[in-house]
Amino acid sequence: MSGNEFDLINRYFKSQPVNRKDVVLGIGDDASVISVPENSQLVVTTDTLVAGTHFLKNTDPVKVAYKALASNLSDLAAMGAVPSWCSLALTMPKLDEVWLKGFCEGFYKLAEYYHVQLIGGDTTRGPLSLTITLQGIVPADTAIRRDGAKAGDWLYVTGNLGDSAAGLDVILSGLAPKNSTEEILVERHYYSQPRVLAGQALRSVASSSIDISDGLITDLVHILKASNVSAIVNADQLPVSEELLQFVDNPKDAAKIALCSGEEYELCFTVSESQRDKLDAVLLDTTTPITCIGKIYPGEGLRVNWKGKSIDWPLSGWVHFLKNK
Amino acid sequence: MSGNEFDLINRYFKSQPVNRKDVVLGIGDDASVISVPENSQLVVTTDTLVAGTHFLKNTDPVKVAYKALASNLSDLAAMGAVPSWCSLALTMPKLDEVWLKGFCEGFYKLAEYYHVQLIGGDTTRGPLSLTITLQGIVPADTAIRRDGAKAGDWLYVTGNLGDSAAGLDVILSGLAPKNSTEEILVERHYYSQPRVLAGQALRSVASSSIDISDGLITDLVHILKASNVSAIVNADQLPVSEELLQFVDNPKDAAKIALCSGEEYELCFTVSESQRDKLDAVLLDTTTPITCIGKIYPGEGLRVNWKGKSIDWPLSGWVHFLKNK
Repeated sequence: MSGNEFDLINRYFKSQPVNRKDVVLGIGDDASVISVPENSQLVVTTDTLVAGTHFLKNTDPVKVAYKALASNLSDLAAMGAVPSWCSLALTMPKLDEVWLKGFCEGFYKLAEYYHVQLIGGDTTRGPLSLTITLQGIVPADTAIRRDGAKAGDWLYVTGNLGDSAAGLDVILSGLAPKNSTEEILVERHYYSQPRVLAGQALRSVASSSIDISDGLITDLVHILKASNVSAIVNADQLPVSEELLQFVDNPKDAAKIALCSGEEYELCFTVSESQRDKLDAVLLDTTTPITCIGKIYPGEGLRVNWKGKSIDWPLSGWVHFLKNK
Repeated sequence: MSGNEFDLINRYFKSQPVNRKDVVLGIGDDASVISVPENSQLVVTTDTLVAGTHFLKNTDPVKVAYKALASNLSDLAAMGAVPSWCSLALTMPKLDEVWLKGFCEGFYKLAEYYHVQLIGGDTTRGPLSLTITLQGIVPADTAIRRDGAKAGDWLYVTGNLGDSAAGLDVILSGLAPKNSTEEILVERHYYSQPRVLAGQALRSVASSSIDISDGLITDLVHILKASNVSAIVNADQLPVSEELLQFVDNPKDAAKIALCSGEEYELCFTVSESQRDKLDAVLLDTTTPITCIGKIYPGEGLRVNWKGKSIDWPLSGWVHFLKNK
């Protein structure tokens, strides 16, 4: 970009709405300076979105911004962290003020909701892409990790599963949503809510946690491998929405989508028998629905049951799966 | 990338050489967890390099990695921070193990030297680019900012100026270096040393500081604007190398390049009259040469003198300048 173009872009980012007291020095110097509270640890995550890979080039920039920040918020939610500051690296082929305005609108709306301050970044010329590094804090030694699941723990998920993949299916069909059901599913694909408050509430009770960004099966396997345990998931108990049931007509197809749907930012977590009673209490204020979907066992592997019997459905990832639905 | 490709890439990044005690949880979970020392503040910077914009697509990946990390290290140096942890977002069009191996070699060599641990990031498919977010620490309220220069302060730079731009001139000519002078200048372009230790030493004496990544004139103006002051720079006092003098034949041309050369990561800083005596002592251990090149005055603007008289050279940025040399 030319110097004037950069000045213009910088004006958009300097006028960001959140001003945290712990930001000693924000945008505008060689680096930003932050005060981290005592007895806290810093939690850091990074996600990149590339046009053509993670979103279509003509996607509404409001939605691109939401997705970029929400995916990072969801990572912090899985750790039980309080999101606090972020850096944004934005690469654009040319100065496009309409796009930039939409992007800032989506970005700031979500950043303001979670009180996340943009503290810096970089703006460069090149193929459209963006990288966000989001930082948060947890009280020392309370972050929820993937490797803490133990045999005997119960397996839970927040919210409903499958809506995001069903919504994407509608979008990729290239047709406008046929009814309000499809409209709702599309909206849920674009605006999945990261479980930020639930993640923080779970710090005191969950033995492990991960966000379902790549699909339940894929992400649960990360917990199982990191914790050296196995699991049985009861697919007939997976929480699915009324809209998903209407979309696919029968519960088994809904469960198949729920097992593989990615990008919906629900949390998958484990809780020991002794902590189980506390779940409702700690989640009360967050009004987060949770569902027990299975149990952790010793050994290796993952078995998926339907009404008590092991399934023989192919589950090779939700994109491929949906294509063959 | 396919799952297998990602596994391979992750193996490269998981085997990174630095293991800091303050990294509670490194690569491999939803986010990393870090302990920040008490009474310290966090300093954060982000830089993106895009193939075709910041480096040629066929540039040796060792050099790309060096440049990416060094430019971030230089930002922290300007703040006086101790570099500590970084996240790497790498976007590649396809899995290229030769490129990746070279990149890791360059990256880890510099990261190890400064004891910087790679704590996470993202690997995605798309046009070649990379974003690094580097974090460091300073004792609370000691970061050197751009806005602290006062009328009466002396203006200094570290090292020599101009070698990087001269080296780039050789590279962009498309011809092999003609002699050892040109070889040395090319090497200095690719491997400019960030002034990390000097920056830390300057925390106790400098009133403001910036790294010269965009050229002395451009970066000094950032200090002047942020501090609401003006300056006179004595171009005849700018430190230049023997090699640059040989390359351009006369001191005035060397000074022109020194005024505008970017990407060389020297520091430009200001020191009050009362702190000036301490400079040699605080920099002693870092063996960093420094040169007084001018003085800060009240008011606005920047005047460049040659042997006491204001210059009338065009100085519209080093790239344009070199083309017209």
